[in-house]
Amino acid sequence: MKQEIPYKIYLNEKEIPRQWLNLRAFMDKKPAPLINPATLRPMTAEELSRVFCNELVKQELDDTTPYIDIPQEILDFYKMYRPSPLVRAYFLEKALDTPAKIYYKFEGNNTSGSHKLNSAIAQAYYAKSQGLRGVTTETGAGQWGTAMSMACSYFGLDCKVFMVKVSYEQKPFRREVMRTYGASVTPSPSPTTNIGRKILQEFPGTTGSLGCAISEAVEVAVSSEGYRYVLGSVLNQVLLHQSVIGLETKAALDKYDIVPDVIIGCAGGGSNLGGLIAPFMVEKLQGKANYRIVAVEPASCPSFTRGKYAYDFCDTGKVCPLAKMYTLGSGFIPSANHAGGLRYHGMTTTLSELYDQGLMEARSVEQTAVFEAAEQFARVEGILPAPESSHAIRAAIDEALRCKQTGEAKTIVFGLTGTGYFDMVAYQKYNDGEMSDYIPTDEDIAKGLAGLPKVE
Amino acid sequence: MKQEIPYKIYLNEKEIPRQWLNLRAFMDKKPAPLINPATLRPMTAEELSRVFCNELVKQELDDTTPYIDIPQEILDFYKMYRPSPLVRAYFLEKALDTPAKIYYKFEGNNTSGSHKLNSAIAQAYYAKSQGLRGVTTETGAGQWGTAMSMACSYFGLDCKVFMVKVSYEQKPFRREVMRTYGASVTPSPSPTTNIGRKILQEFPGTTGSLGCAISEAVEVAVSSEGYRYVLGSVLNQVLLHQSVIGLETKAALDKYDIVPDVIIGCAGGGSNLGGLIAPFMVEKLQGKANYRIVAVEPASCPSFTRGKYAYDFCDTGKVCPLAKMYTLGSGFIPSANHAGGLRYHGMTTTLSELYDQGLMEARSVEQTAVFEAAEQFARVEGILPAPESSHAIRAAIDEALRCKQTGEAKTIVFGLTGTGYFDMVAYQKYNDGEMSDYIPTDEDIAKGLAGLPKVE
Repeated sequence: MKQEIPYKIYLNEKEIPRQWLNLRAFMDKKPAPLINPATLRPMTAEELSRVFCNELVKQELDDTTPYIDIPQEILDFYKMYRPSPLVRAYFLEKALDTPAKIYYKFEGNNTSGSHKLNSAIAQAYYAKSQGLRGVTTETGAGQWGTAMSMACSYFGLDCKVFMVKVSYEQKPFRREVMRTYGASVTPSPSPTTNIGRKILQEFPGTTGSLGCAISEAVEVAVSSEGYRYVLGSVLNQVLLHQSVIGLETKAALDKYDIVPDVIIGCAGGGSNLGGLIAPFMVEKLQGKANYRIVAVEPASCPSFTRGKYAYDFCDTGKVCPLAKMYTLGSGFIPSANHAGGLRYHGMTTTLSELYDQGLMEARSVEQTAVFEAAEQFARVEGILPAPESSHAIRAAIDEALRCKQTGEAKTIVFGLTGTGYFDMVAYQKYNDGEMSDYIPTDEDIAKGLAGLPKVE
Repeated sequence: MKQEIPYKIYLNEKEIPRQWLNLRAFMDKKPAPLINPATLRPMTAEELSRVFCNELVKQELDDTTPYIDIPQEILDFYKMYRPSPLVRAYFLEKALDTPAKIYYKFEGNNTSGSHKLNSAIAQAYYAKSQGLRGVTTETGAGQWGTAMSMACSYFGLDCKVFMVKVSYEQKPFRREVMRTYGASVTPSPSPTTNIGRKILQEFPGTTGSLGCAISEAVEVAVSSEGYRYVLGSVLNQVLLHQSVIGLETKAALDKYDIVPDVIIGCAGGGSNLGGLIAPFMVEKLQGKANYRIVAVEPASCPSFTRGKYAYDFCDTGKVCPLAKMYTLGSGFIPSANHAGGLRYHGMTTTLSELYDQGLMEARSVEQTAVFEAAEQFARVEGILPAPESSHAIRAAIDEALRCKQTGEAKTIVFGLTGTGYFDMVAYQKYNDGEMSDYIPTDEDIAKGLAGLPKVE
């Protein structure tokens, strides 16, 4: 007898993964290493440890250990909000009248509102273990900053957040959540740092970018005693921590013998997608399965679909190491009409390499189409999704509608990374019919790429 | 061997209650009936059905049927977000260093952000079944309006919401969530109704009250073809629907042989508390158990602790029937410095009668103490609670601290009704040290009570 699949598949607490999965360890051709822009040689642990916590540096550089134990203190915290549910989107399937079976892994049921907490608590733990006073970081849509504030509060660490100015203005209440957790929040670019002042001088009136906020946070971290910098995406360590999403997803699917045909995730820096696909990609690399894996990015910030695979700076201020990645150039700033996150100019090196090897696909979507999907989803599935997550919803709906045409009963799994409670300015724009799309011109793209450093 | 209690106790989908529990059916001395202010006789089904849907009128008047089947369509919707978790507050216990065992039933993990959805979907279902075009309603903190918008959207009904002006202004984004679900939202008192115009004339600059918003919504419902009025609290039908909270809580506790000593809930109109305690109160009425049951209300709107048990109007405009309840008088409007919900002048008749019989206790708490508890809870339990819910948190923490003094390992269960994502203006005030308390003077109370109708 076939097992009935519930609306929400919950693992029990004991099934929370006890090890993270290090995807790079399974890759024959590894992602290119971070390099030092001054020496053009791979960054050493010593160099990186001026910016990052020691244990995180170790994780950053480790591309051989397949599984890494999750410390007990982090596992305890995970129990606060994990395992997260894998939801069968019965209501959405019915609304779309599709033969497709749709599942989503919902990471939004914690106060940070997204998957970011999975890595934030790990990074705070290692900072605490090292005896640090606090950390600095940046936040775009605000989810990472909120997550880091929660994590720091839990371990009694100070937390200084630089928030991309456009988000700071669109999401005044995000700041208050961070403050409620004891963090300080500064809009970026700000006059409080050298790089912030420089950027403000060059681009007065800029709405900011993640690349710029990163530069400011790094500057403060390296110039403050007892502080290190933490980052919510892009880095290898973040993908490692986020593998908990994929591992839980796989365990929940396995419980009901469900084999996905296509796995979809939104991609800004790549942390959610990298985590979601980790165990599936391992099977693919081992020739055991052949899932389609799709990255969905905003048409206004199309790193994968229109960027170049090259070494580039990770930040606007060029204070960070160089990473080989799909990038639009570290000077690329998405159009001001772009709402919310997924604003990063590059893409984590692991996904970049996998994409380059043809192991995954990418597509870009325009934001009005994204909000249309978000609203449809909210109305039938009862969850108000974050704009970022709604990129994946858009792609999943499109895939399901194609199934309707072809009659195929494909199994679609997507990552629903977070909730949209702090994105109501964007929703309001959409509700009022005032939201617009902007696709960068070829000249915009060329201009960004012209700033790539000469490395190879 | 003693069973280990997980952080979150989840029932499975099949354990969602299939019947609501009608607490009144178990009471020997029933709550007093609603009466018609013109005739001073109990309201008939016919009279009530001008305002409410027929099936809901039946539920409103039924004080003999102990269990009522939940229609399949509502059960299907419940699967979207139920069962809700019963959480063991291990982190809070540790932070308080208390021998008490604390549990909370968390109703905030749905987009409406609270327990209100449990009754909203039922009321929308019955409106749809009756072939109505839409419903009108009021909302205070905004949770009920959001819940009703979601429910109406699901069944394709129009939804007109009158939102208490102070909340409308403090929570601009609540409106956008409702709009995203297709509802229209009007700040109350408004110039769009007769009663609204009258109140604005009498009290220019008023910040509004639930009682006033109710009057406006009822006026529009009875004067519009194909519309009925729906209410999110106070009514018997709402307590009936909310019994799903208590039934799940009891089932989860029973699974681990946990017997609570004290059950705590915040109380505005009483819907959450009435639902949470339903099965426990039945045991108490049957002499099978002797739980302490505690209602927690704001010191600025103390219906139980300083009100009078008397027949009163349910609304400011006196268009509704009279209910016998603990009340501050239908003209009572809480001080403008009071943040958020729990602003209703009265209390559901069932809880009023139980309180009068000495079967439950009540206490009032001041809002700065409430936000202190909210922040402490947020930091250790990782959930940003609604101000309303935080009244229960305050009382639960106080109870646990008393256990610390006495060394008693009491088991405390409280209802965490919702999340505070849309309450950041209030949190900001608290974070900035600008929140104040206002306790009504004896004159304020006497003034409100002076307006009670002469009935008995």
